[in-house]
Amino acid sequence: MATIKDIADQLHFSVSTISKGLNGASDISEKTRRLILDAAMKMGYIPKQSQRLGAGLTRICVFIENMDYERVEQFGYDIILGFKLEAASERWDVSIVPLAMNRKSECGYEDYMRANHYAAGFLLGFRLHDDWLAQIERTNVPTVLLDNVVYRKNVACVGVDNQQGIFYAVEHLAGLSHRKIALLNGEADSCVSRERLAGFRLGMEKCGLTVQKELVADGDDKAEGTGGVVRKFIREGATAIVCASDLLAHRVLCELHRASLRVPDEVSVTGFDDLPLASYTTPSLTTVRQDRLAIGKNVCKVLVQLLGGNSVSRLLLAPELVVRESTGRPKPEPGSKK
Amino acid sequence: MATIKDIADQLHFSVSTISKGLNGASDISEKTRRLILDAAMKMGYIPKQSQRLGAGLTRICVFIENMDYERVEQFGYDIILGFKLEAASERWDVSIVPLAMNRKSECGYEDYMRANHYAAGFLLGFRLHDDWLAQIERTNVPTVLLDNVVYRKNVACVGVDNQQGIFYAVEHLAGLSHRKIALLNGEADSCVSRERLAGFRLGMEKCGLTVQKELVADGDDKAEGTGGVVRKFIREGATAIVCASDLLAHRVLCELHRASLRVPDEVSVTGFDDLPLASYTTPSLTTVRQDRLAIGKNVCKVLVQLLGGNSVSRLLLAPELVVRESTGRPKPEPGSKK
Repeated sequence: MATIKDIADQLHFSVSTISKGLNGASDISEKTRRLILDAAMKMGYIPKQSQRLGAGLTRICVFIENMDYERVEQFGYDIILGFKLEAASERWDVSIVPLAMNRKSECGYEDYMRANHYAAGFLLGFRLHDDWLAQIERTNVPTVLLDNVVYRKNVACVGVDNQQGIFYAVEHLAGLSHRKIALLNGEADSCVSRERLAGFRLGMEKCGLTVQKELVADGDDKAEGTGGVVRKFIREGATAIVCASDLLAHRVLCELHRASLRVPDEVSVTGFDDLPLASYTTPSLTTVRQDRLAIGKNVCKVLVQLLGGNSVSRLLLAPELVVRESTGRPKPEPGSKK
Repeated sequence: MATIKDIADQLHFSVSTISKGLNGASDISEKTRRLILDAAMKMGYIPKQSQRLGAGLTRICVFIENMDYERVEQFGYDIILGFKLEAASERWDVSIVPLAMNRKSECGYEDYMRANHYAAGFLLGFRLHDDWLAQIERTNVPTVLLDNVVYRKNVACVGVDNQQGIFYAVEHLAGLSHRKIALLNGEADSCVSRERLAGFRLGMEKCGLTVQKELVADGDDKAEGTGGVVRKFIREGATAIVCASDLLAHRVLCELHRASLRVPDEVSVTGFDDLPLASYTTPSLTTVRQDRLAIGKNVCKVLVQLLGGNSVSRLLLAPELVVRESTGRPKPEPGSKK
């Protein structure tokens, strides 16, 4: 099993730098931190306090669906990493189960958990009308959902405050004098999309702006749809587009580039998530950062609460607006005074 | 300063019972727990780990407005108690400041906190358009609000999940075959009222019922208003009234009694909060319990997070439906089959 020293040797860093990276200290760069966490995970590092393990280990199951998490640039990676790090210090034995449709129909959540002696579950990426999500409404197994809400004792939701995140994006754009702000939301009828729409409305109201029906659209999972939506937004006079994810924002940037519209001079664009790609788009993306490592760690903390019989319903973490180059003041309309 | 032994002597309980009461153990009755906590507070008991205090103490200020908290039967009592108990184990020095209007205009939040060397604040009972609440939007002082939402780094909200609570009440009534369910909400335009309305809509939708405009009303702070609203609900055919607080539910029970309508045979009524009075109304009140001691303790935990630089936005605790005598099946309409 790898030690901190092994990781230090591998990366040619000092032991104290590795330790800082593993503990999320603020005086090392994000890039260094990622390097360290990545190496720790690959090398199978387990924090010291969780090495003295024997029988009677608490087994926890993480179910993932519709979410990429295997590479550092993917959304779920840091969440799983944060969860594993915190779980290790709780001395939990964590299994990661990517769910395929067939597996779900074979045996229900409760049965699966019991048969495999899991004490608690963590579910990521499930859709609202998913069969397993419906089963969570009847479960007695302590369970945490990411970005989904189920009202049930022993079930809690953890995530970033989506309403707050979109609110920040709108506030930022309104502060730059944008009046016609559009929202390209995520998948229709998901918890997250509802909350982001509410945040959009709240932000617009707070800034004295009107939400135009034509300037709100649901995201489409297929890239083909984005072009049409962007063209409609521009036709309707939008000078800024708030997107529900960095991936959507990236598509919007591509569409605007194709239409020879300059960002941010002619149209401002914001993303959501702060995936690694947000630094590499052209121009770099102003976005709402989700601290996914903190989300993973807090999921674990909430599971500790639930396993202890405490009734947490939701824990929302504060997002942070990261201003880069894709937002700016709208250029004055032709004929208007400077 | 009182010790656990002093409290035991005063109440003629064993030291271990007192200890259980102070630690919220589940194997003593609610009544005993209240007795113990009440005595501990009156006798100035401070947990042992917080007795070794000197200079450099973290000073925390609790501001209360529009909320009764001085007697055990009042809403704020257990919240403050829970906060104080948890704060004592953090070795914090807590001041309670009931705010009067004049005090607020004299000096702003930030100035007040700085002048008095407070490291963090906890605000209860503030209204949405309150001057101080607006100042919280610009503060850098770690601050927790009860049941209010302000989007700002270092500011978090703690409370029970109000949407979930009303959802539970509706689900319970729909399960008893009520179709015409009315909502008597709290003060118009408060965060809490918005969330409770959302929970009402969600519950009705989930149970396949329609929200009728005539069956939703804002609570009125004056008792005179309740009678009119209740009469309108009954005229419109309501067989159940979901109330946003136990105090409102108590008024509704009085109005129904005055109108010679039997509860729950003719009208079912639910409350919210589970104040001590809920056990003593006639009939006793089915209500949504807020664990106010847990709320107070969790406010403290979230302040610890904020003081440590972690970005919590909201922590919502799960409410619990307490079924007593004020809810039952609606009687069949005259002429309908049994």
